[in-house]
Amino acid sequence: MAKEKKLVEAITSMEVDFAQWYTDVVKKAELIDYSSVRGCMILRPAGYAIWENIQKQLDASFKETGVENVYMPMFIPESLLQKEKDHVEGFAPEVAWVTHGGLEPLQERLCVRPTSETLFCDFYANIIQSYRDLPKLYNQWCSVVRWEKTTRPFLRSLEFLWQEGHTAHATAEEAEERTVQMLNLYADFCENVLAIPMVKGRKTDKEKFAGAEATYTIEALMHDGKALQSGTSHNFGDGFAKAFGIQYTDKENKLQYVHQTSWGMTTRLIGAVIMVHGDDSGLVLPPRIAPVQVMIIPIAQHKEGVLEKAAELKEQLSSFSVKVDDSDKGPGWKFSEQEMRGIPIRIELGPKDIEANQAVIVRRDTREKIVVSLDEIHSKVAEVLEAIQNDMLERARNHRDAHTYEAHSMEEFTDTVANKPGFVKAMWCGEQACEDEIKEKTGATSRCMPFHQEHISDTCVCCGKKAKSLVYWGKAY
Amino acid sequence: MAKEKKLVEAITSMEVDFAQWYTDVVKKAELIDYSSVRGCMILRPAGYAIWENIQKQLDASFKETGVENVYMPMFIPESLLQKEKDHVEGFAPEVAWVTHGGLEPLQERLCVRPTSETLFCDFYANIIQSYRDLPKLYNQWCSVVRWEKTTRPFLRSLEFLWQEGHTAHATAEEAEERTVQMLNLYADFCENVLAIPMVKGRKTDKEKFAGAEATYTIEALMHDGKALQSGTSHNFGDGFAKAFGIQYTDKENKLQYVHQTSWGMTTRLIGAVIMVHGDDSGLVLPPRIAPVQVMIIPIAQHKEGVLEKAAELKEQLSSFSVKVDDSDKGPGWKFSEQEMRGIPIRIELGPKDIEANQAVIVRRDTREKIVVSLDEIHSKVAEVLEAIQNDMLERARNHRDAHTYEAHSMEEFTDTVANKPGFVKAMWCGEQACEDEIKEKTGATSRCMPFHQEHISDTCVCCGKKAKSLVYWGKAY
Ligand SMILES: [Zn+2]
Ligand SMILES: [Zn+2]
Repeated sequence: MAKEKKLVEAITSMEVDFAQWYTDVVKKAELIDYSSVRGCMILRPAGYAIWENIQKQLDASFKETGVENVYMPMFIPESLLQKEKDHVEGFAPEVAWVTHGGLEPLQERLCVRPTSETLFCDFYANIIQSYRDLPKLYNQWCSVVRWEKTTRPFLRSLEFLWQEGHTAHATAEEAEERTVQMLNLYADFCENVLAIPMVKGRKTDKEKFAGAEATYTIEALMHDGKALQSGTSHNFGDGFAKAFGIQYTDKENKLQYVHQTSWGMTTRLIGAVIMVHGDDSGLVLPPRIAPVQVMIIPIAQHKEGVLEKAAELKEQLSSFSVKVDDSDKGPGWKFSEQEMRGIPIRIELGPKDIEANQAVIVRRDTREKIVVSLDEIHSKVAEVLEAIQNDMLERARNHRDAHTYEAHSMEEFTDTVANKPGFVKAMWCGEQACEDEIKEKTGATSRCMPFHQEHISDTCVCCGKKAKSLVYWGKAY
Repeated sequence: MAKEKKLVEAITSMEVDFAQWYTDVVKKAELIDYSSVRGCMILRPAGYAIWENIQKQLDASFKETGVENVYMPMFIPESLLQKEKDHVEGFAPEVAWVTHGGLEPLQERLCVRPTSETLFCDFYANIIQSYRDLPKLYNQWCSVVRWEKTTRPFLRSLEFLWQEGHTAHATAEEAEERTVQMLNLYADFCENVLAIPMVKGRKTDKEKFAGAEATYTIEALMHDGKALQSGTSHNFGDGFAKAFGIQYTDKENKLQYVHQTSWGMTTRLIGAVIMVHGDDSGLVLPPRIAPVQVMIIPIAQHKEGVLEKAAELKEQLSSFSVKVDDSDKGPGWKFSEQEMRGIPIRIELGPKDIEANQAVIVRRDTREKIVVSLDEIHSKVAEVLEAIQNDMLERARNHRDAHTYEAHSMEEFTDTVANKPGFVKAMWCGEQACEDEIKEKTGATSRCMPFHQEHISDTCVCCGKKAKSLVYWGKAY
């Protein structure tokens, strides 16, 4: 029992120190390990398997919309990065530079891609000639590098895994449509698969992507009341097309510039899953993303017939992702491990259960114990997994809604940010000066102007001038 | 017709100039495009889709043997790369060096991984303590960089995609077993999925991997008679373990070093598929790796009912990967495109066919035309795909066997390499001096000492001393 306690006790309680709790969970659940390179993490099997599940499901939904995968080089020549002015200003200060190849210095240094707009533009300029070549709907799965000063597992690291979609269209309308389509796809994925509700909206000019005309974002609220930008979709208009000369002849044989978009989600999503659903016993994974959905833990496994019955049960449940923990650890230790790893269901099965033709299903999220006849266990497991998935989303939505506040004055705003961690909804005049002032006074940044606009006041919460839109504000990761 | 001819005529005949034919095919089949970075290629949708199919099937067979996926950083600190002497000597001359992060010079430069042995060793030293932690069977899918002087699409590029498996075991026997197991898995995959027969064997010391005790290889013969090393599996013994201090306590509580392996295959396999199966009309893809297996080409598609019937047929064949080419190009052009892209089966369907309740299946590999009743088309397509897969392997095996020669003297050896492109089997004394001399005199290198040893002479083909083993020699990519 002493040993069993240790595993759990080694986690800091989230109420005591949320940041430490987070670090404890990613380490104890064996999602990541630190490497010899500052700010670069190792994705361990338990962590990478979550990414594989995210990848598989997202990739399938991209392909349903006509997206094709490609792979672009990881290096960008400095001269190419510099072609679009805003873009290079945004990224040049945080890229890694390759200056030597083998024993020779390079004539032109290369950066390791922080994102691949410039490479895709260069490629599109080569392969797009006619309206028949449009649209191009390309995506790649790869890693990118941004030389961050402070780093945090999943949330901010020098290198991270992501997908980046890059599309080219004949018209501005089609590009805008694709930008919003992908944002909606992202939000649906997060809700339906990760059980995380999102606020969908548009970034202010101050917060938009370097080189974009418009950036759309999905914003989630973590358990500690901080916001996490979870995916973005950018409409570039024809800005990049003009910088890179991407033109096509239309049906009237006239030269036109293409309109482009890009959109991406990253391993950051794993950070969101941890911080939205986790508890003081560790990770809690939504069933649709869990690499292992069911862990069968035999009780008194040395007794005759127990391991055999567990193996039989595993077979019976093989349409789920199921494992048997038949290691020589004690059951209590196994329970702690299964909880730490966030496996949605454990099934306890001992000699008495077998005698009674039953087993005990334990939900990871609520700890509820359900005694089930072995004859009905398959449908019961399906039902419980479904219930967990739905309840997790509902709890996350309730938490988010309960931590979303309105502010009608700067006093109220400052007080809310200081005392009630969460989203603050407040009206804004559209001026960056107010955005800057709010950040300086409260520490909160504008998260987005939500698609779903409400009118909670006529005037800007900061300057009192006429309000242009409602904004979600918050402290953010 | 002029237009239709152009597409095909633009390919150089393989008999005229095999290298140019190869380049033409990779471009015309839209597998790759060149990028702004010397030696780095863009994998276009048609090329990347082949890689996705390779990945999916290989990954599943790895996992069946207990392998788990992880992701390691792309950067290796110089000091880490230097820990194993032979390894750094092998790789340091051909790596890319990152010297600046953002605006600051780095204190220690980082290389972009050319392979990740050092990172895995560093990781294993952290996570392996007891015999209970063994074996570790990890793999990653990623890109690596080697600063090559001359490059060629798929065969040799600065950056390429691959998988690298890295395992750690308690005993030397277990490591050797895993090394051979993965080589066999590779060979089976190439035969069964890519329809390419392999010669399995062991590399000579001169050709083995930097830091390995033994390197095993699979070698394929291309259409032009050159060899292509297609996959390797290395047994490191405890060399890396000693350099990195990877130790575990065994059941008797004694400290032991682990024994390690690594094994990899790359996008080079796509080059092999092109050069083994392609012809003067372009690519020929084995059905099991083809992103599109069946292309339905409607004839006189403007006539009533043709496109509807084609769509119906597509539905009927939906258990295969099937598409309809309903673009506004002419049928001849569409035939050429389908052939260039190597799609295994095309189905021609016109008004007369529909009237007769039939369609025409055309095999890409043999051009054989088969008239089939629409009632039986599903089972016929399955049968033809299976026949194509098997026949492609058999043809490749026949070609390989017909281009494998024996040499009993240096005269015969030189003459064979000069006039009969292919493998040369000859006995060898085991001395590197003879290997060097053979290379200098004939241009052929030792490909491997095959697992299947034959005794074709008592003496070394070069020096006449007692022979130790049969070696496959050949000019190689
Ligand atoms: Zn204002
Ligand atoms: Zn000799």
